[in-house]
Amino acid sequence: MSDIEIAQAARLKPVHALGDALGIPEEALDPRGRHIGKVAQPWLDTLADRPDGKLVLVTAISPTPAGEGKTTTTVGLGDALNRIGKRAIVCLREPSLGPVFGMKGGAAGGGYAQVVPMEQINLHFTGDFAAIALAHNLLAAMIDNHIHHGNALGFDLRRISWKRVMDMNDRALRDNVIGLGGPGNGMPRESGFDIVVASEIMAILCTATSLSDLKERTARIVVGETAERKPITCATLKAQGAMAALLKDAISPNLVQTLENNPAFVHGGPFANIAHGCNTAIATRAALKLGDYVVTEAGFGADLGAEKFIDIKCRRTGLRPSAAVLVATARALKYHGGMAVADVSKEDVAALERGLPNLERHLRNVQEVYGLPCVVAINHRSHDTPAEIELLVRRVEALGGQAVVAKHWADGGAGAEALAREVVAACEKPNSFRFVYDDALPLWQKVEAIATKVYGASGITASAAVKERIERLQAEGYGHFPVCIAKTQMSFSTNAALRGAPSGHTLDIREVRLAAGAEFVVMVCGDIMTMPGLPKVPAAELIDIDGQGRISGLS
Amino acid sequence: MSDIEIAQAARLKPVHALGDALGIPEEALDPRGRHIGKVAQPWLDTLADRPDGKLVLVTAISPTPAGEGKTTTTVGLGDALNRIGKRAIVCLREPSLGPVFGMKGGAAGGGYAQVVPMEQINLHFTGDFAAIALAHNLLAAMIDNHIHHGNALGFDLRRISWKRVMDMNDRALRDNVIGLGGPGNGMPRESGFDIVVASEIMAILCTATSLSDLKERTARIVVGETAERKPITCATLKAQGAMAALLKDAISPNLVQTLENNPAFVHGGPFANIAHGCNTAIATRAALKLGDYVVTEAGFGADLGAEKFIDIKCRRTGLRPSAAVLVATARALKYHGGMAVADVSKEDVAALERGLPNLERHLRNVQEVYGLPCVVAINHRSHDTPAEIELLVRRVEALGGQAVVAKHWADGGAGAEALAREVVAACEKPNSFRFVYDDALPLWQKVEAIATKVYGASGITASAAVKERIERLQAEGYGHFPVCIAKTQMSFSTNAALRGAPSGHTLDIREVRLAAGAEFVVMVCGDIMTMPGLPKVPAAELIDIDGQGRISGLS
Repeated sequence: MSDIEIAQAARLKPVHALGDALGIPEEALDPRGRHIGKVAQPWLDTLADRPDGKLVLVTAISPTPAGEGKTTTTVGLGDALNRIGKRAIVCLREPSLGPVFGMKGGAAGGGYAQVVPMEQINLHFTGDFAAIALAHNLLAAMIDNHIHHGNALGFDLRRISWKRVMDMNDRALRDNVIGLGGPGNGMPRESGFDIVVASEIMAILCTATSLSDLKERTARIVVGETAERKPITCATLKAQGAMAALLKDAISPNLVQTLENNPAFVHGGPFANIAHGCNTAIATRAALKLGDYVVTEAGFGADLGAEKFIDIKCRRTGLRPSAAVLVATARALKYHGGMAVADVSKEDVAALERGLPNLERHLRNVQEVYGLPCVVAINHRSHDTPAEIELLVRRVEALGGQAVVAKHWADGGAGAEALAREVVAACEKPNSFRFVYDDALPLWQKVEAIATKVYGASGITASAAVKERIERLQAEGYGHFPVCIAKTQMSFSTNAALRGAPSGHTLDIREVRLAAGAEFVVMVCGDIMTMPGLPKVPAAELIDIDGQGRISGLS
Repeated sequence: MSDIEIAQAARLKPVHALGDALGIPEEALDPRGRHIGKVAQPWLDTLADRPDGKLVLVTAISPTPAGEGKTTTTVGLGDALNRIGKRAIVCLREPSLGPVFGMKGGAAGGGYAQVVPMEQINLHFTGDFAAIALAHNLLAAMIDNHIHHGNALGFDLRRISWKRVMDMNDRALRDNVIGLGGPGNGMPRESGFDIVVASEIMAILCTATSLSDLKERTARIVVGETAERKPITCATLKAQGAMAALLKDAISPNLVQTLENNPAFVHGGPFANIAHGCNTAIATRAALKLGDYVVTEAGFGADLGAEKFIDIKCRRTGLRPSAAVLVATARALKYHGGMAVADVSKEDVAALERGLPNLERHLRNVQEVYGLPCVVAINHRSHDTPAEIELLVRRVEALGGQAVVAKHWADGGAGAEALAREVVAACEKPNSFRFVYDDALPLWQKVEAIATKVYGASGITASAAVKERIERLQAEGYGHFPVCIAKTQMSFSTNAALRGAPSGHTLDIREVRLAAGAEFVVMVCGDIMTMPGLPKVPAAELIDIDGQGRISGLS
């Protein structure tokens, strides 16, 4: 059966039953259809004194075209923890429509490890992304409107950094010239669109602790500069009130369920390159108050997503993971060992062995740099051979780790019970969680710390202009912000073709972007696409709906 | 109290109680929060054999800056009908965020005649507009993606009529050049954005009878032409399936309530100039099956909105109004009589008398051209004097009509009971409902019929190019479509400054646009803005939300 067929065959609990089981009072659970609810953020604030459950971070080896299965592992582990008698809640990011209509189909897990209702989660869901897009674009409209009516704030038209956003893979919108057509249509200038997940509003929402926090940080967004290079903020345009009003409901976490009727929060979804790539802190915090175990994923591999989870999300919001799960597949490691993606279903122990350093470095990073007990989840695929699995388990054990084969994709939670037991054990192990760098370290040295400690780089470089920009941000008082490194997720280096565990490379910072509202400084190291395009045959061509409203072609 | 304060003080019934009272089974009412529900469109189909209630169309004199109050009258009349013992349901359009953040504040009625929850209805609501925007923009992305990947269909880049949309007043997006930045970013070409209410998808949704009907008509949208002027449709891009999937929930009507806890459908909201300006036919039909009286409004005045309600919405969907209500205020008629808008609160019987021909022509049109019994609602304002009201009532009676003072803004349904009784009586009067023109009439003569019978024009004109375009559409098989005239709403003529009831003018067709999916031909007669701009001080600057989520500044 396809993912959507499995999802459509599922028996779902009504959302109020999910809420009851978690002790959420009826007045704090706003239904959005029969199987989706928003848990009122103001009610969540009343839980502050409750003890927190244990937070388990699911991360992965460096992503490959062969696929690793981080989301399915997160869901399967959540179900498995429930099966072995733990009250566990899963926390995931919301899917973006860009990939849904582009390459990937849906993004709500797969096989027998999915969150449901799958169609709604993939299409619109509770409207959070639409709200973020409108809030973002309202600010953009107010900027151009301000300029049209005389530009009293003195915007330098060449230095407006606030673009518009759309939840769509639409490359033709990347770079454009707006305001054409004469004096009635505003002032012509260069601008562009990003996809919604790249919006700074998304990043703010995902690290916000309350609606007031969200509004205050929105007010501090720097949207452009004057000719004298003085920053102009959202607050000077008086946009933050209306923007926060648009985000009133978006800030409340969305409660859904897994195929096995266990609770899941699916809330927020920032890019993992120019932003930190995790679901909202409000959802994670809510789950910790309502469950004993919370399983959440970070974007990309453990070098990028887990580092940002720790240095950006945990640092700002006080969250502390008890353990990490590092997801790997034999296929992906054979790809890291040099096999072509078309061949990775074939047994090749030598290729696996050549690829293992990727897993080993990530494991060492999680254990030694982040200081977290770590379980390696071998996400099982039907072509895996005993020899491959045996090698994998042995090598992980040699590093003091534990590797467990998990079959949640085929078998649901039952397939991940062994993993769940190891994770429970890991949560009891000594934990020396730590950030990669201190707040007080200068921005430059923060990047250096990540590059050398996590990426295996020998150092960092930047052009004089970039260095000058970093120094200026340091001088302007942004030096205490964490850094958010935007680079390829395919390699520890900035060269996507360097698989495995390259060492001694240098990390070149090409560009610096201040996210004054999101409270980090983006260090762009490579070509980063913030508005994807559609492939020659987009997934959208295959999606359909019949007269009874039954959707097909999502996967 | 301000509108939002009145709305926030209201005691709302839970949406399931509204559903119960209408006999909607629980499984057919999808809750969207505690006070909003989507009534499943497939369930509505099962009601086909039930008799219809009586349909009352609320229309108005030519709009003026003084305000007429069509929406408040629709809501107040609905409440009043319920007060006098009729099961009445109100059907309204959904507000667009453009005006909410621009000039107008909210659009859910006013005073004690509002639909609630007012903040949600004004901000996002159930996500219908977001779904329409995404469906529209997906098609746009697929067009540019097709061109980027080789343009096998042979689009002439200068003749792509499908723009993008955003629910925002953002003039800088009206005209732009997209696809800049090199070969990776698509093909540079001129394009632009409209506001969502101007989307052809909105017009299709609002006249659709089912999801299948919506998908089939979406497939027929003409998005551009080849160099040989051959039309290219949505179907050739295989976009309609994914677009319809995005609109799965948007097609189901939204059930809310008035301040007096009576049911209201608020669903769809196309522009009244380049589209037909009415809520969805599915909502109107649903209300007719569930209530004894249905009160709905059309856009602008009785020359534009009511004509399109009849010739486009009723013609396509088989709806038949039993009576019409023509809304007027003494203030607005004094403006039509030549007073400045700043002065209309002062008594001036002579100005009123000079303005009355506007009301009289609209009344005669409704009675004689559309063949509907008509009640004139004098929407009472505190400055109205007895002499003014007496003149108004007398002149309406002279035309065989009935004028009733209604005070719903101040007094809710109780203030409109006399109006409600007259409307009930009007619904029993002989009804000779008719279209302004037959399907078989050529497009040119359809415009002529409207211009001469409804607008008081002496004839119509067009450039040779426009005439040629009309002939071509006629030859291509679009001659049976109704026409949708886009002109200023401020005057019977195409000159907004000609108040009152101008005669003998000519209607010049400047431009013709085919809406092959919406199934009408737009005849543009004047400057029509399909992407508004924000004023110097946008309403957005005044909108705010506090830490408890209480919104202020909407009105």
